[in-house]
Amino acid sequence: MKSKLNIGLFGFGVVGQGLHYVLNNSTGFKANITKIAVKNKEKKRPVGAELITYDKWEILNNPEIDIVVELIDDAEEAFNIVSEALKKGKHVVTANKKMLAFHLQELYDLQQKHNVSLLYEGSACGSIPIIRTLEEYFDNEELLKVSGIFNGTTNYILTKTINEKLSYENALKQAQEKGFAESDPTNDVEGYDAKFKAVIIAFHAFGLIIKQEQVLNIGITGLHENDIRYAYEKGFKIKLIPIIKRLPDNRINAFVLPQFISKTKQLYNVDNEFNGASVDCKFSGEQFLQGRGAGSYPTGAAVLSDISALSHGYRYEYKKHTQKHASDFTNDVIINVYMRYNTSSDLDKIKFELINETFISDKYNYVVGNINLQTVITQREFILKNKIFISFLEM
Amino acid sequence: MKSKLNIGLFGFGVVGQGLHYVLNNSTGFKANITKIAVKNKEKKRPVGAELITYDKWEILNNPEIDIVVELIDDAEEAFNIVSEALKKGKHVVTANKKMLAFHLQELYDLQQKHNVSLLYEGSACGSIPIIRTLEEYFDNEELLKVSGIFNGTTNYILTKTINEKLSYENALKQAQEKGFAESDPTNDVEGYDAKFKAVIIAFHAFGLIIKQEQVLNIGITGLHENDIRYAYEKGFKIKLIPIIKRLPDNRINAFVLPQFISKTKQLYNVDNEFNGASVDCKFSGEQFLQGRGAGSYPTGAAVLSDISALSHGYRYEYKKHTQKHASDFTNDVIINVYMRYNTSSDLDKIKFELINETFISDKYNYVVGNINLQTVITQREFILKNKIFISFLEM
Repeated sequence: MKSKLNIGLFGFGVVGQGLHYVLNNSTGFKANITKIAVKNKEKKRPVGAELITYDKWEILNNPEIDIVVELIDDAEEAFNIVSEALKKGKHVVTANKKMLAFHLQELYDLQQKHNVSLLYEGSACGSIPIIRTLEEYFDNEELLKVSGIFNGTTNYILTKTINEKLSYENALKQAQEKGFAESDPTNDVEGYDAKFKAVIIAFHAFGLIIKQEQVLNIGITGLHENDIRYAYEKGFKIKLIPIIKRLPDNRINAFVLPQFISKTKQLYNVDNEFNGASVDCKFSGEQFLQGRGAGSYPTGAAVLSDISALSHGYRYEYKKHTQKHASDFTNDVIINVYMRYNTSSDLDKIKFELINETFISDKYNYVVGNINLQTVITQREFILKNKIFISFLEM
Repeated sequence: MKSKLNIGLFGFGVVGQGLHYVLNNSTGFKANITKIAVKNKEKKRPVGAELITYDKWEILNNPEIDIVVELIDDAEEAFNIVSEALKKGKHVVTANKKMLAFHLQELYDLQQKHNVSLLYEGSACGSIPIIRTLEEYFDNEELLKVSGIFNGTTNYILTKTINEKLSYENALKQAQEKGFAESDPTNDVEGYDAKFKAVIIAFHAFGLIIKQEQVLNIGITGLHENDIRYAYEKGFKIKLIPIIKRLPDNRINAFVLPQFISKTKQLYNVDNEFNGASVDCKFSGEQFLQGRGAGSYPTGAAVLSDISALSHGYRYEYKKHTQKHASDFTNDVIINVYMRYNTSSDLDKIKFELINETFISDKYNYVVGNINLQTVITQREFILKNKIFISFLEM
């Protein structure tokens, strides 16, 4: 590639501006942002007007532009832009987890067909180089499990509930006031964001494209102070944890659930807006990575790292995918959970395979036991509607 | 390169056998170990005699061998083998930290001159991909500090002293019995091993080749139960920590000292034989990586990862070195330490710039304060001889 690359940037929000800053303040790597395509004509931008365009084709049709960087909110429009750019032979960097989770297969195919590279380290766990590490370093390791804290918003909220004894509602409010949660927090607090990241990571860890709708996500909206007290008394912290696991028969299971985490785990100490990823390897044992999960500069730096890698001709090899490391996806697994419920009829609907602990009081009721994940999936709407709280517990 | 590589292996100890196992049990990557050169003719080997040779030239002069993997103990002989192999145009993988720390400049020059690749991820922090992450992911990040637990033996010993209240002597004995420490533990317990790794990491983090003899290393041999009690009462753990730091004037400082670590640090939870590396970045904030620091399979897997990378034509770019990120090395820095001493005359010899705390009793004496690192270096022999214990404390 050329010695100084021309970048066409889509979106100039938090991450776009972070990239702009990091790029201009980085001593090593040099690249021009040639054009920035944005939607809102009313908004004031902290860059010269000559850089701004409202027409995406000004970037996509510009042969001078080597790399398209896509950092907009709208996942479907992002997919249009990214696939158009790849078809035109441009390399692309994106941080759009929702788009990736919905379109992994098409985006993989487009890369192969048009012999271009799509990088997206900024889409998962912010500044933690989790995708690159899985691709480049654990490419010959048989992985057993990947799990972690992939969502900074819920981790911030959950940290406040345990460390400062705030209720879920108050912690959410505080997170919104501080800009850690959006006014509509659904995507984060119901575990969709964490799930999208898990789907992306699963592709690189196990080589399997999992359909996002196959993966259960139950977030933290059902969290009650009784659950917080329970966790506190047992010495647990509560974290929202996606787990992606290889089963003995080589199938893959994945789900997103709150989890009670004990002091002995490194994730116990990953608080506030930080992310952490734990990778269980057959030969190397447990690896743990921690870093800032979000934020303008950390995510901007992750995007810059991808741009720099592109300038060296880097592309993901998807080795585990081509080698077919995993055979299939299944939700037919038994998991161990704590479940706080309302009335005994709940237990008829949400049937456990085995109950190890039963607690009944005038304040609240819970059971701890084994349940088939498929049962939780079937009853998901009922669980959410009735604010039943389920938390994974390691056996 | 060819589809199936031929490897010539030097040394068949713990790591060599680990590599052999991991290679034969890895589903993805395929490579032959064509020949294994060993020294001791008496030892029984768990592989066929046709694989073994006692003549290094059988590997070095064999044009069929693509990659030389060097895993012997003797650092000087290792350097002979590695430089000979590089001169003959062979790519090399090594895990020999001492050899690397003593010969970084020559090995860098040989790679450039003969257009070959030398990889050594297994030399630092076992299974943690610290060098690869610094090279590939933080290559455009301005780094501020790298520190961590780079030596599993001392971490195992120190964990026993704090968690099980063993004396240093008993903890060392237990580590030796369990095979975590050698019969002559000097290299580990006096901090040489950690220092060698710090020198290697400094090259990739800051682009500077530091002469190992410039870097202070004081280990844990002076640790007394009074120090252990002090740390315990203050809620600290004691870890042996190399710090490599960029100063505001762009010079680099590095040293290896015991450190009191508070609960708020991730390194607090890195116990037993585990390693952890903390990387402070200008844009990405603090990154943390943890994994197994040693052991047959983890280190074998790190070596295999390098072999696999070689098969894709990978080489370190040493970007920070070519971009001259750091200007020079200095030991003229002020550090904050706890020092347990014997008599008041010790304080005349080991002069503090500023003393913040003084404790004098009939049992033991200590001060906490600021000292110039150069003073500690000058008095190193005196400190070791008199079993004075110095521990770094973050200000």
